Amino acid sequence: MLESTVAAIRPLDEAAMAAARELHGRLTKPAGSLGALEPLSVRLAGLAGTCPPPLPEPAAVAIFAGDHGVHAQGVTPWPQEVTAQMIGNFLAGGAVVNAFARQAGASVTVVDVGVATPLPADPAGADQAGPRLVAANVRPGTRDLTVTAALTRDEARAAVEVGIRVAGELVDAGAGILLTGDMGIGNTTPAAALIAAFTGVDPAAATGRGTGVDDETYARKVGVVRAALDRHAPDPADPLGVLATVGGLEHAALAGLILGAAARRVPVLLDGVIAVSAALAAAAFAPDAVGAMVAGHRSAEPGATAALRHLGLDPLIDLGLRLGEGTGALLALPVVTGAVRVLHEVATFDSAGVAEK
Amino acid sequence: MLESTVAAIRPLDEAAMAAARELHGRLTKPAGSLGALEPLSVRLAGLAGTCPPPLPEPAAVAIFAGDHGVHAQGVTPWPQEVTAQMIGNFLAGGAVVNAFARQAGASVTVVDVGVATPLPADPAGADQAGPRLVAANVRPGTRDLTVTAALTRDEARAAVEVGIRVAGELVDAGAGILLTGDMGIGNTTPAAALIAAFTGVDPAAATGRGTGVDDETYARKVGVVRAALDRHAPDPADPLGVLATVGGLEHAALAGLILGAAARRVPVLLDGVIAVSAALAAAAFAPDAVGAMVAGHRSAEPGATAALRHLGLDPLIDLGLRLGEGTGALLALPVVTGAVRVLHEVATFDSAGVAEK
Repeated sequence: MLESTVAAIRPLDEAAMAAARELHGRLTKPAGSLGALEPLSVRLAGLAGTCPPPLPEPAAVAIFAGDHGVHAQGVTPWPQEVTAQMIGNFLAGGAVVNAFARQAGASVTVVDVGVATPLPADPAGADQAGPRLVAANVRPGTRDLTVTAALTRDEARAAVEVGIRVAGELVDAGAGILLTGDMGIGNTTPAAALIAAFTGVDPAAATGRGTGVDDETYARKVGVVRAALDRHAPDPADPLGVLATVGGLEHAALAGLILGAAARRVPVLLDGVIAVSAALAAAAFAPDAVGAMVAGHRSAEPGATAALRHLGLDPLIDLGLRLGEGTGALLALPVVTGAVRVLHEVATFDSAGVAEK
Repeated sequence: MLESTVAAIRPLDEAAMAAARELHGRLTKPAGSLGALEPLSVRLAGLAGTCPPPLPEPAAVAIFAGDHGVHAQGVTPWPQEVTAQMIGNFLAGGAVVNAFARQAGASVTVVDVGVATPLPADPAGADQAGPRLVAANVRPGTRDLTVTAALTRDEARAAVEVGIRVAGELVDAGAGILLTGDMGIGNTTPAAALIAAFTGVDPAAATGRGTGVDDETYARKVGVVRAALDRHAPDPADPLGVLATVGGLEHAALAGLILGAAARRVPVLLDGVIAVSAALAAAAFAPDAVGAMVAGHRSAEPGATAALRHLGLDPLIDLGLRLGEGTGALLALPVVTGAVRVLHEVATFDSAGVAEK
């Protein structure tokens, strides 16, 4: 499934992009006055292969949840059980991602791809409209990447294919855009390792304070990332090997979600540092997958900026968020929708009887 | 009306802000992880005087339109008639502001506070749901500020009071947030003059390329702004005098809208360079009015950044927009709503059964 998905990812359609650029020149606004929204809408036309591209509706957030053996190294002050507890919060609609998703009219799908502790009962029950839980646990958390590979190659592949499958199911159900979400206590540590491995930046530059660690924990976290890279020497040309040795189950699944969206030519709106670390893996599998990616926001984590630079993506929002869950992607969604809506709804100089300069 | 409005503007409520900070500490997210959204929601609690503050709904965009005698100096390549033609486009729903307002569920009110050429017939007609035109023309465009004062003090006051009245009518009709919009061919020239007058920055630093002028026109525009400041030597402690000598009718009305919103303790979401130049006047009338202002976006115009710095406001969106109309404010609206929604809808650690660090 991974190989066929990668093979299905094609470049953007140049004719549709040219049509979008030409249309922008005729709309009742000064040329270029919508700033970054104009090239974004052009790119989405290229992804869809038509101008205007479809409005990115409805939106679907997929939150991949996993735990991390490296938690044992003391890289975070939060207990591992919080991953499972927050899944309960997501399913009950009480987290920030739920509030933002309700506002944006987006569905929320929570995917257990590797939680280590027992999940709460699904309080959504038969409520089809509420958040949905997908059980796809590849293994109960990764191994400690300072001691051994976090995952076997087969486990990493299985997690990637969970993401591809979820992307396909959401697109089959009608989603016009996928948003990345994540939950996993300790998951900024493997994200930093992935970013260092794929971009070549130093572990200190790739590592941030995550949910808020003190100086001592931060120093330990940088040491852990450095030790993992030294031990495994991951090859950036072998993304499955990188994900297996220093990644996480939710990171691998997110890479799969991105590949799946790109193969279906549906845009994927990236959240924060976990998402962009996974996006590096997706781009290593299929460079043309970058055409389907929209960077939702610039996470406060320094590694996110290194990853975005490597991908050549400029984020839409930069408000110092560092929550994850998909919250930054959801805040950026109206910008994406607005960019496309302009191509659908704005009058031309000719049709509106407005003089040009 | 101006004096009583200014007198009604009071500081933010410290108790409500303390309650919002305390609530943020109990919600199921790491402390501070929502970045700039947290202090924004705290400030809006202080404005409302209650925690949580009401959701900023429904939203109302007020587009003030005017023309400019300085157009005769060749500061823009667009014909003056485009101001009236764009009003027709707004009323027909064909402009970018209309597309963004439909997406955000915001109403659009177009206020003719000083258009120089005949307005088109209102195509909205009896359609109560569509954009609405308010006839409040103080005079058909300003005088040329390089030759004489743009407005008399009485005209400037009348325009400010149009804005105050529109704010009151929109709030009385139920608006939970006001968004600033503007239309006026040539209006970035008086905006630059206002910014230079109120902030003290050099005219060259306050002046940008507006809708896109060439090098020769840009040099002429800077010279015009410098000549206006030299001729009138406006006193920043006399905001009515500044608006009269180097401002515009829509700038004055926007200052009034901001004062009116602040007096009613309703947030006002600022659009681009025209809005922030008007906000400087509002802050000069009533420094506490800044508490009601939310900077929607950072316009590509350099003067906007100088004005935002002077006001101590950080914009929510920075995407290189330079269209005006209220488009940047509308793109930022979901961020404001999301910031407040968190205080209404997110579960606490205690209620959700999630462990803390």
